[in-house]
Amino acid sequence: MGSCYGENIRLMVFGQSHAPAVGVTVEGIPAGEAVDMERLRAFLARRAPGNSEFATARHEADEPEFLSGLHDGVTCGAPLTAILHNRDVRTQDYAETRYVPRPGHADFTAWAKYGEARDYAGGGHFSGRLTAPLCIAGGICLQILERHGIRVSARAVEIGGETEKAAMDAAIRAAKTAGDSVGGVVECVIDGVPPGLGDPMFGGLENRIAGIVFGIPAVKGVEFGVGFAAARLHGSEHNDAFIVRNGAVETKTNRCGGILGGISTGMPVVFRVAFKPTPSIETEQESVDLRTMESVQLRVRGRHDPCIVPRALPVVEAAAAIAIYDALLSRRKERE
Amino acid sequence: MGSCYGENIRLMVFGQSHAPAVGVTVEGIPAGEAVDMERLRAFLARRAPGNSEFATARHEADEPEFLSGLHDGVTCGAPLTAILHNRDVRTQDYAETRYVPRPGHADFTAWAKYGEARDYAGGGHFSGRLTAPLCIAGGICLQILERHGIRVSARAVEIGGETEKAAMDAAIRAAKTAGDSVGGVVECVIDGVPPGLGDPMFGGLENRIAGIVFGIPAVKGVEFGVGFAAARLHGSEHNDAFIVRNGAVETKTNRCGGILGGISTGMPVVFRVAFKPTPSIETEQESVDLRTMESVQLRVRGRHDPCIVPRALPVVEAAAAIAIYDALLSRRKERE
Amino acid sequence: MGSCYGENIRLMVFGQSHAPAVGVTVEGIPAGEAVDMERLRAFLARRAPGNSEFATARHEADEPEFLSGLHDGVTCGAPLTAILHNRDVRTQDYAETRYVPRPGHADFTAWAKYGEARDYAGGGHFSGRLTAPLCIAGGICLQILERHGIRVSARAVEIGGETEKAAMDAAIRAAKTAGDSVGGVVECVIDGVPPGLGDPMFGGLENRIAGIVFGIPAVKGVEFGVGFAAARLHGSEHNDAFIVRNGAVETKTNRCGGILGGISTGMPVVFRVAFKPTPSIETEQESVDLRTMESVQLRVRGRHDPCIVPRALPVVEAAAAIAIYDALLSRRKERE
Amino acid sequence: MGSCYGENIRLMVFGQSHAPAVGVTVEGIPAGEAVDMERLRAFLARRAPGNSEFATARHEADEPEFLSGLHDGVTCGAPLTAILHNRDVRTQDYAETRYVPRPGHADFTAWAKYGEARDYAGGGHFSGRLTAPLCIAGGICLQILERHGIRVSARAVEIGGETEKAAMDAAIRAAKTAGDSVGGVVECVIDGVPPGLGDPMFGGLENRIAGIVFGIPAVKGVEFGVGFAAARLHGSEHNDAFIVRNGAVETKTNRCGGILGGISTGMPVVFRVAFKPTPSIETEQESVDLRTMESVQLRVRGRHDPCIVPRALPVVEAAAAIAIYDALLSRRKERE
Repeated sequence: MGSCYGENIRLMVFGQSHAPAVGVTVEGIPAGEAVDMERLRAFLARRAPGNSEFATARHEADEPEFLSGLHDGVTCGAPLTAILHNRDVRTQDYAETRYVPRPGHADFTAWAKYGEARDYAGGGHFSGRLTAPLCIAGGICLQILERHGIRVSARAVEIGGETEKAAMDAAIRAAKTAGDSVGGVVECVIDGVPPGLGDPMFGGLENRIAGIVFGIPAVKGVEFGVGFAAARLHGSEHNDAFIVRNGAVETKTNRCGGILGGISTGMPVVFRVAFKPTPSIETEQESVDLRTMESVQLRVRGRHDPCIVPRALPVVEAAAAIAIYDALLSRRKERE
Repeated sequence: MGSCYGENIRLMVFGQSHAPAVGVTVEGIPAGEAVDMERLRAFLARRAPGNSEFATARHEADEPEFLSGLHDGVTCGAPLTAILHNRDVRTQDYAETRYVPRPGHADFTAWAKYGEARDYAGGGHFSGRLTAPLCIAGGICLQILERHGIRVSARAVEIGGETEKAAMDAAIRAAKTAGDSVGGVVECVIDGVPPGLGDPMFGGLENRIAGIVFGIPAVKGVEFGVGFAAARLHGSEHNDAFIVRNGAVETKTNRCGGILGGISTGMPVVFRVAFKPTPSIETEQESVDLRTMESVQLRVRGRHDPCIVPRALPVVEAAAAIAIYDALLSRRKERE
Repeated sequence: MGSCYGENIRLMVFGQSHAPAVGVTVEGIPAGEAVDMERLRAFLARRAPGNSEFATARHEADEPEFLSGLHDGVTCGAPLTAILHNRDVRTQDYAETRYVPRPGHADFTAWAKYGEARDYAGGGHFSGRLTAPLCIAGGICLQILERHGIRVSARAVEIGGETEKAAMDAAIRAAKTAGDSVGGVVECVIDGVPPGLGDPMFGGLENRIAGIVFGIPAVKGVEFGVGFAAARLHGSEHNDAFIVRNGAVETKTNRCGGILGGISTGMPVVFRVAFKPTPSIETEQESVDLRTMESVQLRVRGRHDPCIVPRALPVVEAAAAIAIYDALLSRRKERE
Repeated sequence: MGSCYGENIRLMVFGQSHAPAVGVTVEGIPAGEAVDMERLRAFLARRAPGNSEFATARHEADEPEFLSGLHDGVTCGAPLTAILHNRDVRTQDYAETRYVPRPGHADFTAWAKYGEARDYAGGGHFSGRLTAPLCIAGGICLQILERHGIRVSARAVEIGGETEKAAMDAAIRAAKTAGDSVGGVVECVIDGVPPGLGDPMFGGLENRIAGIVFGIPAVKGVEFGVGFAAARLHGSEHNDAFIVRNGAVETKTNRCGGILGGISTGMPVVFRVAFKPTPSIETEQESVDLRTMESVQLRVRGRHDPCIVPRALPVVEAAAAIAIYDALLSRRKERE
């Protein structure tokens, strides 16, 4: 299984790209949390397709319909379910790739795992569209976290090898023109995390965050603090000295990304996520016809982003918010 | 909670550095799997302290004592528990750091989380010693995986910024002489993974592997395939073409690290792990006395590795083996 | 949390009596299982209100809408979500009981747990209506189990103290006339369970079945085999002798209800479930106004069954089917 | 899997009757809970064999050895592991039953499930000896619950069909003399449970308690409040009226056993457990030789209780304490 996450809240994401709907159920949010629908809509709009020159032309209103869990706009303690109907579906776009897996996509592995019964249309349950319900759940967690003084913010720090905004845009535009795509790196900072969140070993904040962030399609790496660069530092360069500031213990620097031993230090939690370039490109690619086992040349049609990083920013925030909120609920059990 | 891992096997690691023992319970290994004790001992010896010029001088026999789960050397279906007694314990080494957290360690966050009740000696449950029981569980999984034709192998690809063996050794030696430490990068390759292992979204092989690997102390980053470098490639450069080889579908290259959509392609699963430099260094460091909230200078005593990468290799293999074996058991449910 | 069940399939039931919908998500059903919609509808109809003289007059079409998890009527491996819209909702019936908890209902405990934010209308998430999505999930499991030769069948063995069909009907009719209600006992038999299903201790078939059956509203007792009567037997009277029949080991009698040590013997699994009388009765009852903390007399209005046992039969079958199918999937992991 | 229980604490019981040890790991007990070893020992002594005329003659000191999780006698936040060494082991007693399953025991089902690899000696992991580690975990939970004003108490209400103390004793003595055994019913009352504990549906207190209590060997039925007798009452007889007492809402009667909708009312939680007669009896019984598939007559040797009810009392208390404490920790998450 895989579409379920969490220890104190339990999140289940369902739906396929071309099924009637995608959606999410979240169990475990305490009763009494108000959901600001306007803000949630604005948050979802950041992820929605069709809202920029770089995004796929697929249009979905992405207006969440809440089936349960709310009473007068406030969580009532029961599992919360929200769905997004799939309306702008063009399944015929995918007939061609039913037996010819697109390189870089889950088409082949879905076939290996599920065989003939798989839902191949539009990537099925592997579609990037599944990040929309993740954003519903995460958007609600973000609102709750803010009431605890915790803010989550993601930004692109690298796209197509570029680190400046204009150059990033140019890289995406160039890729689009070339029928190609580019990847990038997203940095996420979580401010206001109190010290003591997270658990030892497999329950560390790193494990919890990586455990959900790797569920975002196209993510191939996650690092915390200075991350891979830490491997090139001496201990004397990497260790963050402890100091007292405003009566509380802090670290002078934050190379550890706000996490020691899996547990928050009270400094900002910082992590970076590597996104591979969108695998759907117009360029002709080599594939195999799974019926005949013969090589074929494939040209992927359909509507695709030349770079998914801009739309991935709210998704990374959503994932981080869910992980942190889940850890925050654990914390409550430990103290009276 | 955090010391528990797995969906089909359930692994629980227990113990503190200076408690009577560290150990592990593994539930869910099917009955009938033989455990080769000689090979297990040899595997544990690779991790054991005191076996190289670079390792801590702490000596522990690391002879696992099996309390349950085996019958005549074969798994009997009941939960398997093995322990390692802690014998060479010098708690007085840590009296100094009880209220003066060591930079880069979990001392401060353990205090923030557990308060006065924490077991501060030797890092308590956060100690690197807890990787020993992880290696017992992983060593057994490695033996079972081999019977399925799956082999796991980790090697250091970078230490102290160096990528050649002699230079790596020199970097460690120089750090030791300087009373400092260095980090590094470990690459792990898993051969023989059949296509179709792993689940969508949060149950992907990346999530599963990262979810356990970030439980190894000092890990600050995990990447799959070309990882962060993927962010700098075009789709046309990164996508792995599908081809037919020996009658089966393969990818011509393996930039995705053997995983698409969270599910194995059948090619080797490849990931890299960033280890920060050992935080325990002899150099004087700035810290805070948690009783007085005054700044103090700390010089960490005790026995420490100038670089934990060499001893971490079997630990990464163990973690990977556990994750893959757990996914392999999932696979069995899906097909009759 | 509580609306989630299962180890190999993961079932999450959502919805409130007067929310837009009730529904269920089931993750973990292997790809390739056909769902016969006609049979599923017929199964749901057995539970549906308004189909007998004894049932509540509430009318719901109970036509499940599948949002995900099916492709051409066959499970595709992705989480399966089905919903039932709540259409015939008369919330005004419940305004009176918002602050005056109905005796025998969850009104008071929902208030104690969730406070003002609870969804009080129609019992909210505690409503018997939530057994409808349970029947969707269970109805599908029943179809799959039949392909494995396993059949589940529940019948009323006692209603209002009567054990004959005509007397049971008369007891219900008399209770209805009196504005009162009666309880009863349901016996469920599961034929075709292979030996070896279930796990030791907390994973026994008894634990698994009781763990889901106590989730059906009004259930106050569960017993296996001869159950409570076993307490009055000698070992020599209760033990089931082993014999060989058709080349296989069986037990001569089946007082243990097909389960020894939590694991199936291969004989029919037999359990009985005690249902309390429907708490909603027209008779005036003593309650408390939660605002003023003063005693009040309450007369429950609304539409209620004088006995829920007849409609509970498919619900017990559904619950049993889910538990057994989950255990069956565990079994697959253990053997190649 | 099956030897793991809990949502907020996670309990894993390991060991076999004739393995080096039996034990338990409990994760999730917050740091700072003192363990009174004297009281724990006294609690374990109530379950220990060899302490009454009715118990098996097997002698085990049952002195728990704590391997981890405590620091100066107080929980430190890390997983707590305690073991009991198995010393008085007479494996030869069981050679006879290796291939001749004892009626009423798990011998046959263990063989069906695990095959040749099973640990057959003394019932292996299915032995009643596994209730000793359950009592260690439960004994600690009982101490913590008392600090929250919650008390758990179990007593025998029926043995061998008798309900008076002297008659119960006589029934056991008569069974012993006859080489036979008797069962009984245990009633457990939990006082001081605050209103609002438990979750809807599968997370109800009934589900949680039954989910652990059915893990005690020989349990064949669990009922809450008036239980099966509720099936014979009218709603007007069974419903508990709400009243105000000492400024709080209570129920006038407690036929529901302190639970409505799965959630505690604040009244005592009351449940009863049916124990079957000990299956090990000296009387000759019919069985099958699994090698030859021929009928054989079996006379069970070894050391066995003619009635396990007296020793089961602390086990039921332990199980109830674990379930209630787990639910209490859930409650903390819901409110700040």
